[in-house]
Amino acid sequence: MKIMENGSVVSPKGFKAWGNAVGLKKDKKDMAIITSDVPANAAGCFTTNIVKAAPVHWDMGNVENSIRGIVVNSGNANACTGKQGMKDAEDTAEKLASLMGVKAENVLVCSTGVIGVNLPMNKILNGIDSTYPLLSADIEGGNSAAEAIMTTDTYAKKVAVETEINGKTVTIGGMAKGSGMINPNMATMLCFITTDCYISKAMLHKALKACVKDTFNMISVDGDMSTNDTVLCLANGLAENEKINTQNEDFTKFKEALKYICKKLAIACADDGEGATKLIEAKVTGAVDKDSARKIALSVVSSSLLKAAIFGEDANWGRVLCAMGYSGADFDPMGVTIKFRSENGEILLMDKGTPIVFDEELAANILSAHIIYIDMILDEGTSHATAWGCDLTYDYVKINGDYRS
Amino acid sequence: MKIMENGSVVSPKGFKAWGNAVGLKKDKKDMAIITSDVPANAAGCFTTNIVKAAPVHWDMGNVENSIRGIVVNSGNANACTGKQGMKDAEDTAEKLASLMGVKAENVLVCSTGVIGVNLPMNKILNGIDSTYPLLSADIEGGNSAAEAIMTTDTYAKKVAVETEINGKTVTIGGMAKGSGMINPNMATMLCFITTDCYISKAMLHKALKACVKDTFNMISVDGDMSTNDTVLCLANGLAENEKINTQNEDFTKFKEALKYICKKLAIACADDGEGATKLIEAKVTGAVDKDSARKIALSVVSSSLLKAAIFGEDANWGRVLCAMGYSGADFDPMGVTIKFRSENGEILLMDKGTPIVFDEELAANILSAHIIYIDMILDEGTSHATAWGCDLTYDYVKINGDYRS
Repeated sequence: MKIMENGSVVSPKGFKAWGNAVGLKKDKKDMAIITSDVPANAAGCFTTNIVKAAPVHWDMGNVENSIRGIVVNSGNANACTGKQGMKDAEDTAEKLASLMGVKAENVLVCSTGVIGVNLPMNKILNGIDSTYPLLSADIEGGNSAAEAIMTTDTYAKKVAVETEINGKTVTIGGMAKGSGMINPNMATMLCFITTDCYISKAMLHKALKACVKDTFNMISVDGDMSTNDTVLCLANGLAENEKINTQNEDFTKFKEALKYICKKLAIACADDGEGATKLIEAKVTGAVDKDSARKIALSVVSSSLLKAAIFGEDANWGRVLCAMGYSGADFDPMGVTIKFRSENGEILLMDKGTPIVFDEELAANILSAHIIYIDMILDEGTSHATAWGCDLTYDYVKINGDYRS
Repeated sequence: MKIMENGSVVSPKGFKAWGNAVGLKKDKKDMAIITSDVPANAAGCFTTNIVKAAPVHWDMGNVENSIRGIVVNSGNANACTGKQGMKDAEDTAEKLASLMGVKAENVLVCSTGVIGVNLPMNKILNGIDSTYPLLSADIEGGNSAAEAIMTTDTYAKKVAVETEINGKTVTIGGMAKGSGMINPNMATMLCFITTDCYISKAMLHKALKACVKDTFNMISVDGDMSTNDTVLCLANGLAENEKINTQNEDFTKFKEALKYICKKLAIACADDGEGATKLIEAKVTGAVDKDSARKIALSVVSSSLLKAAIFGEDANWGRVLCAMGYSGADFDPMGVTIKFRSENGEILLMDKGTPIVFDEELAANILSAHIIYIDMILDEGTSHATAWGCDLTYDYVKINGDYRS
């Protein structure tokens, strides 16, 4: 597997993209379009919030079709917008479809931004008209698209890899936006993955679901789960590898590369959480089962108290044990070992249930790093899981105290 | 029912208390003792965190006994302190018991403060020695005790009521400390309730459990659930009412008064959440069942995004619907009506699933009040629930970024 320089959603064969400013946000790019030159198989993972935005409903209803394009807008989530919102999502798809000479059902749509306000459809429709002619397979196509989907993100998130499958070079590219409201099950997270791999719908869905479970569903910024979270993957088959129809060696190789893309983008979303200054990686080992390991890791990266302590570079490991304890997973607290790690070293804080008197200076030095690793070793079994989050800062409060204005 | 002026845990007959500075915190009161002149029936509700502090284990094991006293310290939670912590809890109980001429098993203990550091037992034991002679049934006894259990609380929380039960005046008094880490199931919340009511252990437990469910278990400050949460109630029978042995009219009257005490103290804990500037009361009506109503109300007051919006006085009602949607309760989003209310007026934001274009100036005026009411009217059934929380502020981050120092 090779990581590509300047990789993005246009790295795989037959994909074009562009990001444009169409007037939804003030002087910022706010619309991205991705197209495939040929019909692509699609797979999607969607928010489990029962309040789903209109575009989520549209995509859930159409992801089984052959897909030619995706329209994404930032600045307005088209969520909690009633029947008008459903019509607007369909009209958006219809607009790109008409330009491409396909049906609305062959186009997916995604929105992110403010909730509860109807889309300014004239801007959306004119925006598609003005963006469509600019679609490009060049680096700038992928870059501008990644930029256009940002909301409170501070940098564009994109990546691509090449892998060899049965003698053919298969490329996977992706971009994501995250930042606020990111929680288990992908809250306000949009991710778009393209690949020229030749793979069946069923196998594509299987691979995506597995990858999302270990990556996007293991990040948390603030515990809120949005109405719009979506991960979409399009596979157009232009790599001309032998079609992946079963869980064979080719499938495993494809899944590995796909997981790399998902992990890279998911961690970037946690790292770029609203107001975040630090990335937290919480790893649980020795758990009784996978589900328990996941619950514990997520509970720890979701704890406001721990997140505030990490912001303050305070080795308050008691808050780690406390969050483990209310995770809903069962374990013996007297078997727990806790360590903090960073590029500056490692420190043991609790050893099999017994608190360790530790060197505060060493702890402060470790916590001064940007990436903080929290190791939780249980004495229950052999299952493990990793979750990612960020610290809780003054800026999080500032950004969310007055997001709409 | 009569609310008593200067009411506290010493208002009921036969109770004494005192709060003292014994050196656990710098120049602040940090130990409270409550005693009953005669053996009291006790009932307790405890944290559901599987990581329980040593005093919680002690109290769970002894709450069935006849209780004569409670020792509470702030500044150190005696949590995650291994076997030494268990011994320290027992030694604390033993110390007060020896002064009172009773057994350790007749004394309960509670601790709150930093996690993972062993109690300085010489200070605790000397502190009990110096506090015991000061115990008083006067106003100052209750006031000083309520002050001594505070951690990051900004004011002492105490209350008492009188009610007539079968011709006798029965008094109930209480005090609580809350502030950070308060979440459903009473995270880092300590509450002590005293009453001279004559009531069986079984009925006392039944009444307390029911009251806690609707009050302390319906408040959230930051979603973290502590290792120490405890609500204890002592009933010494000195009111000489006919003993309450069944769910009769007397029981109902007692429970009503007890609920008033619990609600008053629980709301004060939410109102005084770490860094809080506003109290949020979220009320769900029309839910399919009680459990769904509770889940939705709690989900809304626990949402970091909504809490930050309330701090910013931003009528971001979409975050209300969003938090309702991931609460785990089932409902039809198209049947939801949402209103914000305060002493400054009322504003309709969503009407049966349709967003309402609203007057931003009116909304801002409503949100400028201290207490913000959020009404969520569902179209599912007749069940209702209310939860209380507070806004998320810069000061929350500040307080928790460096709590230990």
